[in-house]
Amino acid sequence: MEGSPLSEMNRRFLLVRRPRGEPVPEDFRLASTPVPQPAPGSFILRNHFASLDPAQRGWMDDRPSYMPPIPLGQPVRATTVGRVHASANPDFAPGDWVLGLNALEDYSIVTPGGFTTKVDVSRLPSPSYLLSALGAVGLTGYFGLLEVGRPQPGETVLVSGAAGAVGSVVGQIARIKGCRTIGIAGGAAKCQRLLHDYHFDVAIDYRGKSVKQLSAEIGAAAGGGVDIIFENVGGEILEAGLNNLAPRARVILCGLISEYNSDEKHGARNLWQLIVKRASIHGFLIMDYVPRFAEGGAQIAAWIGEGRLRIDEHIERGLENAYPAFMKLFSGGNIGKMVLQIA
Amino acid sequence: MEGSPLSEMNRRFLLVRRPRGEPVPEDFRLASTPVPQPAPGSFILRNHFASLDPAQRGWMDDRPSYMPPIPLGQPVRATTVGRVHASANPDFAPGDWVLGLNALEDYSIVTPGGFTTKVDVSRLPSPSYLLSALGAVGLTGYFGLLEVGRPQPGETVLVSGAAGAVGSVVGQIARIKGCRTIGIAGGAAKCQRLLHDYHFDVAIDYRGKSVKQLSAEIGAAAGGGVDIIFENVGGEILEAGLNNLAPRARVILCGLISEYNSDEKHGARNLWQLIVKRASIHGFLIMDYVPRFAEGGAQIAAWIGEGRLRIDEHIERGLENAYPAFMKLFSGGNIGKMVLQIA
Repeated sequence: MEGSPLSEMNRRFLLVRRPRGEPVPEDFRLASTPVPQPAPGSFILRNHFASLDPAQRGWMDDRPSYMPPIPLGQPVRATTVGRVHASANPDFAPGDWVLGLNALEDYSIVTPGGFTTKVDVSRLPSPSYLLSALGAVGLTGYFGLLEVGRPQPGETVLVSGAAGAVGSVVGQIARIKGCRTIGIAGGAAKCQRLLHDYHFDVAIDYRGKSVKQLSAEIGAAAGGGVDIIFENVGGEILEAGLNNLAPRARVILCGLISEYNSDEKHGARNLWQLIVKRASIHGFLIMDYVPRFAEGGAQIAAWIGEGRLRIDEHIERGLENAYPAFMKLFSGGNIGKMVLQIA
Repeated sequence: MEGSPLSEMNRRFLLVRRPRGEPVPEDFRLASTPVPQPAPGSFILRNHFASLDPAQRGWMDDRPSYMPPIPLGQPVRATTVGRVHASANPDFAPGDWVLGLNALEDYSIVTPGGFTTKVDVSRLPSPSYLLSALGAVGLTGYFGLLEVGRPQPGETVLVSGAAGAVGSVVGQIARIKGCRTIGIAGGAAKCQRLLHDYHFDVAIDYRGKSVKQLSAEIGAAAGGGVDIIFENVGGEILEAGLNNLAPRARVILCGLISEYNSDEKHGARNLWQLIVKRASIHGFLIMDYVPRFAEGGAQIAAWIGEGRLRIDEHIERGLENAYPAFMKLFSGGNIGKMVLQIA
């Protein structure tokens, strides 16, 4: 076995109770255990950066989903990027950078398979880019918009959660593809960012507005209706979008962040509009596009290099701050992709 | 000008007030006016049969839809089949049978265009078949299921409103295509019809059941989930279906009859399932398939001829019964396609 001496402790951010509605600090516990030893075929990853995403809230519930619930007493599942600390697998040497679906903890035992990938970070501004621009966030925007939405030049694209990690990427790619873009966000500061940082054509602040008011604002901005909705929020914001569909509109259902913390889901009460406009809603999960990640990542990297795509990261530091950092996702407290720096 | 003397009166079933929720008799009035004379280029159609459909409820509302609202003081819009009574159009001679989008009245002024089509009724059991098997009902089932749903042999198809005009056709076509079929209907008698008359593999009675109970019953019947939902009802029945989606499931959203008479729409509160299963919902309107009606009608007629497709019609008689006949659509009082015989 190679690697540095295992003298440190492994801090782990455990899920100890299933949240009811909004997670509270008591649902989690920061525990310390000895750093594990790798069994044959596996290695120990020192996590440097972890992705914090609204989807993790869903994994905390005990209900059928696309992944099993996080077991109680186990650390919160997260995509991380880090370096091999000790290895009993010939393909992974200490010091190698690795991306994978691990957990909020200093050290993860990794048995390669699934998403585990050795990565080259030498030309990246930060290894965290593998969790934002070149990770699920950038690729969700890329494949969700282009493969499901199939935007055509001149079409109108409505993005909710537009100042968020995925939303800001979607708006910029839509613009690159020649679409008119309308972004919805909460508060004047975010709306300013939509216009100045992400070059949306129109920014709409949803705060304090009824479905009717929001529908009217979208309608005024969209003219002949929206051809594509990239939906990250759900609830009344989705309803306001559905009230403004153009014929044959496509709704990419990527997230429903407004509902993750509520037991009583709001849903969409105006599905009739789908019939009226012969429109469609498509549930989207980035994991279906794993075989095409290299292709998407290369295009995103090229756009960043050309100065056509801006990626913002919101870095919070320390496993001890995992809870407040995670909660900022729901209060709108982050600008850009939320990343927890662990080491 | 040709035609028989215009001695009769024209009874017309007028919309005089927009219904609030469930239509009441006072929303309508049966008026009598002289039978009109055709202007040059138009003709007068003696309506024999009129289609009564849930969609007409939507046309009574003053809100944006795929057709303008029925103007107050005008007769309720309806697809009818009848014979030319008097003509000032060289292409339509008295006695010709004609299908078109007209109204609930004895005589309609028709200016050809749109859906107006001269039809051959000589080989049909009844001209009303042009409103059921070979009309929007049969074609909705045919194109909705086959073009949007794209059923594959061995897939499971869930149909709501399965004993209704469209639902019963969908179930039978799904079976012809080698699918397993689950039908949802209200009451034991209808469920018996699903099994015996329309050969569904499983019939589920939704009455008196919670979303949870209904979801469990669908799940038990579907095994690995439903690949296709043909949705005619909406609300809690749609939710129960969405709780049982197979990966990549397709939902054909054809109707939402449970919501047409309610101001507060229920909608679907579990859209999250679309993401989990990467499923899609597609709004469907038969009018998009008008250019392919002949193709669909020929296939349906062939299946009827081979004894593989059973079509039931529920005939009510007399314009004076238009209101109670229409309301049976919402109380589940009809078996098969509801047709009003006018002459």
